[in-house]
Amino acid sequence: MKNLLVAQSGGPTVAINSTLVGVYNAAKGKVDNIYGARYGIKGVLNKDIHDLSKILNEENLPILAQTPACALGSCRQKLKNPNECPEQYESLIKIFREYSINYFVYIGGNDSMDTVNKISTYLKNNNINDIIVVGAPKTIDNDLIETDHCPGFGSAAKYIATTISELERDCSVYSVPAVTLVEIMGRDAGWLTAASALSRLNGAKGPSLIYCCEKTFDTQLFLSDIEKTFQSQNNSILVALSEGIHDNNGRYISETTNQICIDEFGHKQNAGAAKVLEQIVKKEFGCKTRSIEINLMQRAAAHISSLTDIKESIKLGEQATKCALNEMNGQMSIILRKNNNPYEVKYSSIHTSIVANKVKHLPDNIISSSGNDVTNKAIEYLKPLIQGEPSIKYKNGIPLHLNLFKA
Amino acid sequence: MKNLLVAQSGGPTVAINSTLVGVYNAAKGKVDNIYGARYGIKGVLNKDIHDLSKILNEENLPILAQTPACALGSCRQKLKNPNECPEQYESLIKIFREYSINYFVYIGGNDSMDTVNKISTYLKNNNINDIIVVGAPKTIDNDLIETDHCPGFGSAAKYIATTISELERDCSVYSVPAVTLVEIMGRDAGWLTAASALSRLNGAKGPSLIYCCEKTFDTQLFLSDIEKTFQSQNNSILVALSEGIHDNNGRYISETTNQICIDEFGHKQNAGAAKVLEQIVKKEFGCKTRSIEINLMQRAAAHISSLTDIKESIKLGEQATKCALNEMNGQMSIILRKNNNPYEVKYSSIHTSIVANKVKHLPDNIISSSGNDVTNKAIEYLKPLIQGEPSIKYKNGIPLHLNLFKA
Repeated sequence: MKNLLVAQSGGPTVAINSTLVGVYNAAKGKVDNIYGARYGIKGVLNKDIHDLSKILNEENLPILAQTPACALGSCRQKLKNPNECPEQYESLIKIFREYSINYFVYIGGNDSMDTVNKISTYLKNNNINDIIVVGAPKTIDNDLIETDHCPGFGSAAKYIATTISELERDCSVYSVPAVTLVEIMGRDAGWLTAASALSRLNGAKGPSLIYCCEKTFDTQLFLSDIEKTFQSQNNSILVALSEGIHDNNGRYISETTNQICIDEFGHKQNAGAAKVLEQIVKKEFGCKTRSIEINLMQRAAAHISSLTDIKESIKLGEQATKCALNEMNGQMSIILRKNNNPYEVKYSSIHTSIVANKVKHLPDNIISSSGNDVTNKAIEYLKPLIQGEPSIKYKNGIPLHLNLFKA
Repeated sequence: MKNLLVAQSGGPTVAINSTLVGVYNAAKGKVDNIYGARYGIKGVLNKDIHDLSKILNEENLPILAQTPACALGSCRQKLKNPNECPEQYESLIKIFREYSINYFVYIGGNDSMDTVNKISTYLKNNNINDIIVVGAPKTIDNDLIETDHCPGFGSAAKYIATTISELERDCSVYSVPAVTLVEIMGRDAGWLTAASALSRLNGAKGPSLIYCCEKTFDTQLFLSDIEKTFQSQNNSILVALSEGIHDNNGRYISETTNQICIDEFGHKQNAGAAKVLEQIVKKEFGCKTRSIEINLMQRAAAHISSLTDIKESIKLGEQATKCALNEMNGQMSIILRKNNNPYEVKYSSIHTSIVANKVKHLPDNIISSSGNDVTNKAIEYLKPLIQGEPSIKYKNGIPLHLNLFKA
C-alpha cells in the first residue's frame, strides 16, 4: 500500500486550499489513500491524521477551492536540526510507516520549505528511499525565491488594488484636506504594498505616495512628500505603506513612535506604523488624518480572489504531487514566467535547500528613484497576477465555505 | 424650463450612487435638465452645479451604480434655522431661480433630512410653491426611522457577514487559544454589528459573542463571557462589537481605557473600543489577542454589494423623484416590508419632519437576553437584505468605477 499525506503550514492565504485541491486531484488514483494532517507538521507528529477521501468529493472540492485559510489547519513549528534532535525524525518516520505514507506534500512558505529540506536530507542521509517529501509554495508576501511569484499573493494583491481604489472613492467625497494612511502586510518584503499601485490600472489616481519596507523610511522626507502632494494634487491624499517600514537604524517605524502608549502597569505598547504616522501627520498639518490597517482581510478575502492565482495554485499543488510521485525528494514546485504579454507560465521545481529561509525582496527596479512610488516594471510584473474573477458560489447571501473538521 | 437638481450628503455608502442613478432615470424626459451639485448643500450654495446629462449616459450609468461613495461628493453641513439665518435660504432660492430648478432631491441620512425639512418648511412659510424639495434616504447605520431599512445598509451587512465568515476561517487555523475582536461601525445603533450573525447562515459558528452599542457594556461581564466561551467552545474566539459600546455612565469603552496613550506634548489619545479591549483580554488571559477595525472598507466595498440593496436604492431614488414631480414637498422616500418569506417590499414616502434627527436603535427583541448575541428575530429581519450579487464589471483585474469629476 502506498499512501500520500498532505499538510498546510504558515500564515493563511485564500489560495492554499486550492493547492490542496491540486494535490488531491493529482494524487487521486495514483496512491491508495490520501491523508491530511491537521495543524501542519505538529499534526503529523501528533498523528492528527485524517482520510481525505472520506471528506472530499467532486461536489465539495470547488467549495474547498473558494474557502480561505488552511482547511487542514496550520502551525508555526520548525523542526530542529536532525543531528540535534534525531528523535523527532525517527518519530516522523515511524508515523509514516504506520500509515504506509510514501509521499508527504507540505504546503507552506519559507519556514515550511526548511522543514521539507530537513526531512528530505534526513531521509537521504539515512538511506530511506521509499519515503518522498516535497513542498508546494504559498505566501501572500510573495517572498519565496526562485519561483516567479507565490500562490496566494495574486489574490491578496487583487484585494489590495480593489480596496485602495474603493478607498480612493471614499476619501474623495469631501473637499477638505485629508490624509489617509493605509498599512499593508509585509515586514520584510514590500510586494503587497507595491500592489496598491494596481488601483491605477483603470485611470484612477491611486495612492499619492507608496512606501515599501525595502527602502529606509525617513519621517522628515515623508512629511515633505505630503507637503508637496498637498501643493500639487487635490486635497485627498492616500498613502500606502508596508507594516515593516523602518528608519536608517533598522528600527521599525511602529517602534520609533513619538506617541507612547502605556498600560496601567507602565508597559510600553506599540501601535502600527500607520497609526504612529497618523499622529505625526495630524500634528504637522492639523488636517483630518486617518489610518487604516487592512489587517487579516487582505489574506482572507476569498470572495475577491484572482482567478489566475487560484488556477496557478491548483497547478502548483499538482506539480508538487507529480514531483513526489516521480520520487524527486526535497523539491518544491515553482512557477516560471515565459512571457508577459500575453502572460504565459510554465511549472517546474527546485530543491528546497535553495529556497528555505531565503527572502525575495523588491529589486531596485521596482521602487521609483524618489523612493515614494513604484515603477512601470512593477506594474508589468504585478498586473497579470490579479486577472480574472472565479465565479464564487453563494448561499443565503454569503460565499460558501468548506469546514473540513466541523465540531 | 423646469430643471431638477440632485445632491448627496453625509457618510459614503456603496449604494448612494445607485440612488443617484434612480433619480436620473426617473427625471429623464420629465424635466428639461438634470443638474448635480458637488459636495452636497455646500455645493448648491457655492453654485458648484453641473449638467449631468453631459456626463451620464446609458453606458456609464451601470458603472456609476457599482461605484462606491458619493460620486457628487458630500458635506457634513447642516443649514441653520430659517428664522436665525434667512439669508442662507434666500441665497438658495436665488440659485434655484438662476438655474430654473423646480425640483431638488437630496440623498442622505438624518442630518440631510433635516436640511430637506428646513428648506421645505421655509418654502411653505414663504408661499413658494413652484420649488419642491424632497429626500432620498441612505446610511449604512440603518438608523433612519419609518423606513423598514436604509439603502447602503444591506451591502455593508453583506460585507460584514462575508468578512466575519472569512475571518472565522482564518482564525481557526491554529490550535492555540486566541481571541479576535472585530470592531464594527455604529456609534448609536448596532444594526451593522448585529449583521455579523449572518455569517452563521450556512452553518458556520460565527462570532462567539456579539456586543451591540444599545446595551450597557460591562467589562467584567465581558471577561466572564470570554472565560465561559473558552470552557465550552474551541480555542478560537471571535467577538463582534460596535464602536459605540459604552459603560453604565454612558462613557464609550474607547474612552475608559486602562491603557493611556500620550503624545509627546502629553495629550491623551483614544484608541478604538476593540484595541482597548485587546489589551484587557491579553492581560487577563495571556493568550494571543488581536483587534481588527474593519474601518472604511465596510462602507466602501462595492465589489461585494447586495443586489437587493442596489435594486432598492435605485427604486428609492426613483420614488423620491416621483414625489418631487408630484409636488410632494418635504417628503422622503421610504421602503416598507410587506412580507418576509418570500421577501416583498413596497415604496412610499413620509414627511422629513418626522424622520429628521431621529435615530432608530435596535429594538429589545433583536438583542438576546444574555446581552452578548442577537435573536432569531434579528436574523429574520436582516437576512433578506443581503441577498443576491450584482454582476460587477471588472477591467484589468479590478472593478470599474466612474469618477464624474476627473482632474
